[in-house]
Amino acid sequence: MRLAIDAMGGDHAPKEIVLGAMDAVSQIDNLHITLIGDENKIRAYVTDEKNIDIIHTEEVITSEDEPVRAVKRKKNASLVLMAQEVKENRADACISAGNTGALMSAGLFVVGRIPGIDRPALSPTLPTIDGKGFLLLDVGANVDAKADHLVQYAIMGSIYTEKVRAVSNPTVGLLNVGTEDGKGNDLTKKAFAQMKNAPINFIGNVEARDLLNGAADVVVTDGFSGNIALKTIEGTAMTMFSMLKDTFMSSMKTKIAAGMVKKDLKELKNKLDYSEYGGAGLFGLAAPVIKAHGSSNRRAVYSAIKQACHMVEYNVTETIKNTIELNKEEKE
Amino acid sequence: MRLAIDAMGGDHAPKEIVLGAMDAVSQIDNLHITLIGDENKIRAYVTDEKNIDIIHTEEVITSEDEPVRAVKRKKNASLVLMAQEVKENRADACISAGNTGALMSAGLFVVGRIPGIDRPALSPTLPTIDGKGFLLLDVGANVDAKADHLVQYAIMGSIYTEKVRAVSNPTVGLLNVGTEDGKGNDLTKKAFAQMKNAPINFIGNVEARDLLNGAADVVVTDGFSGNIALKTIEGTAMTMFSMLKDTFMSSMKTKIAAGMVKKDLKELKNKLDYSEYGGAGLFGLAAPVIKAHGSSNRRAVYSAIKQACHMVEYNVTETIKNTIELNKEEKE
Repeated sequence: MRLAIDAMGGDHAPKEIVLGAMDAVSQIDNLHITLIGDENKIRAYVTDEKNIDIIHTEEVITSEDEPVRAVKRKKNASLVLMAQEVKENRADACISAGNTGALMSAGLFVVGRIPGIDRPALSPTLPTIDGKGFLLLDVGANVDAKADHLVQYAIMGSIYTEKVRAVSNPTVGLLNVGTEDGKGNDLTKKAFAQMKNAPINFIGNVEARDLLNGAADVVVTDGFSGNIALKTIEGTAMTMFSMLKDTFMSSMKTKIAAGMVKKDLKELKNKLDYSEYGGAGLFGLAAPVIKAHGSSNRRAVYSAIKQACHMVEYNVTETIKNTIELNKEEKE
Repeated sequence: MRLAIDAMGGDHAPKEIVLGAMDAVSQIDNLHITLIGDENKIRAYVTDEKNIDIIHTEEVITSEDEPVRAVKRKKNASLVLMAQEVKENRADACISAGNTGALMSAGLFVVGRIPGIDRPALSPTLPTIDGKGFLLLDVGANVDAKADHLVQYAIMGSIYTEKVRAVSNPTVGLLNVGTEDGKGNDLTKKAFAQMKNAPINFIGNVEARDLLNGAADVVVTDGFSGNIALKTIEGTAMTMFSMLKDTFMSSMKTKIAAGMVKKDLKELKNKLDYSEYGGAGLFGLAAPVIKAHGSSNRRAVYSAIKQACHMVEYNVTETIKNTIELNKEEKE
């Protein structure tokens, strides 16, 4: 198995990216990693070159770059060269912790789509109270989705969850403003009708209020609403931790109490940290493309690599392709 | 000032509704309240009949009723009779803690719209970390919004916030997937262009991540996304409190710590309880219609009553009507 990794993407690049890659090649059999980026900076952290290649480039896409333009103009950026490795079959999958929009552009324009998939979906796994987690898609690859797209997301998410997350017959819910059938806007009403006939375990509408309680293994929505849901979860959790911190720092008594529960609160915070669940897959592309969290450390990079390996190993892309074809034939 | 109140709506009706109304007439000058519902049940909590009227009816709309149908068929339901009081000018405003959908239907079909407003918006005030709070609209009155509607929400929300919440020149943000101009889906791109020319203090796009940090005094969005944002905030906060509780109950040490910060955590919880900020206004109707939270206690009912009084006193409806007319003329 060969992975291409953008060594320059993310807040802690290249150090944590390279260290995560080193961990992976030493622990995963038959794994070969190509790191793309500034060779000198990368080499500073490479302690063993076995199964590690470097493609040198000095061009990078930053988080400030306008995504589509950057991918078109910065042809030698580490992120673009990474996608090229996949396109030209020198890598089975790729990973970047860099500019999300640029990765989506490179995925779409360089790696390309699976035939039959109209739009790729950005699909993170988010935490649930029971620790199982759920897949939310799309969180922003496609902000003007149609019902057909949502059905495709449902099929892709279902296959990924079954194969990679080892959930058998995963439940699929449609994010909506109420749980009753017939609820929602034009888009969700249409999608609901189509999802009932799709090759998935569709359990109907789910409400945003129940997401973290594990309302469904796979939650499908348009990229606009999904982005709102994802960022609202992040923002609310962040705000609450900040308020909690203020509460604990407010008096001597609360400071003492804080000391007593510090370790437990840290665990609680980890439970809600979704980088623990790997990166966000960009589903619907001709090969696995993983967006690792921007703040990824060595461990998060390692888990994104494992995730990419699983997607290759369990033929997620091929299965999506075949299922979409079959579903199309049945509808015709 | 005369208010009509649905005494049978909400989890703690009629008791807490009646008690809240009693508090209000005793503390607010020139306030007259008409309570609508089961006279015997209401009378059980009326300790002083001064400025309190009762309209007896046994019919009620429950939370299980299908909203539109219920309003059309249950013509004598307390919620419908309440709206009639406003329509026939026997009340200046009305309040219900009952079925939200039914209240929206009764608002639309019985109370009626302000000329020039295409769709009413359900508009709760949500907490922010600094305690100021912000107005979010729409959270579900209109799940298939157009750009024109969003501009009307912005104008209405701005007027309400200035007059009732006493924020001068309130900032108005458009909920979007990124803060840069030009971000978003078709709807937000169109709305952005129009909002720049509206008579409001438009500050551009705001992200869901920053809502509780007070990104804007008024945040405008379509009813679908607004509902997702609102329920995601609720769900995330609920989940975190539940996890926090588990953390504190996990060992003797954490239990002792919990005892030490109990009062402080209770305060934190109150800070995030948006029923503290009054009810959700249903803006765009010919008179103020307030949806009090379903779990409203005496105090929440009292604050919804104060809110309705302020809306009447400061001519919010009239100001919206005039501003919308003027904005229309300027555009023509």
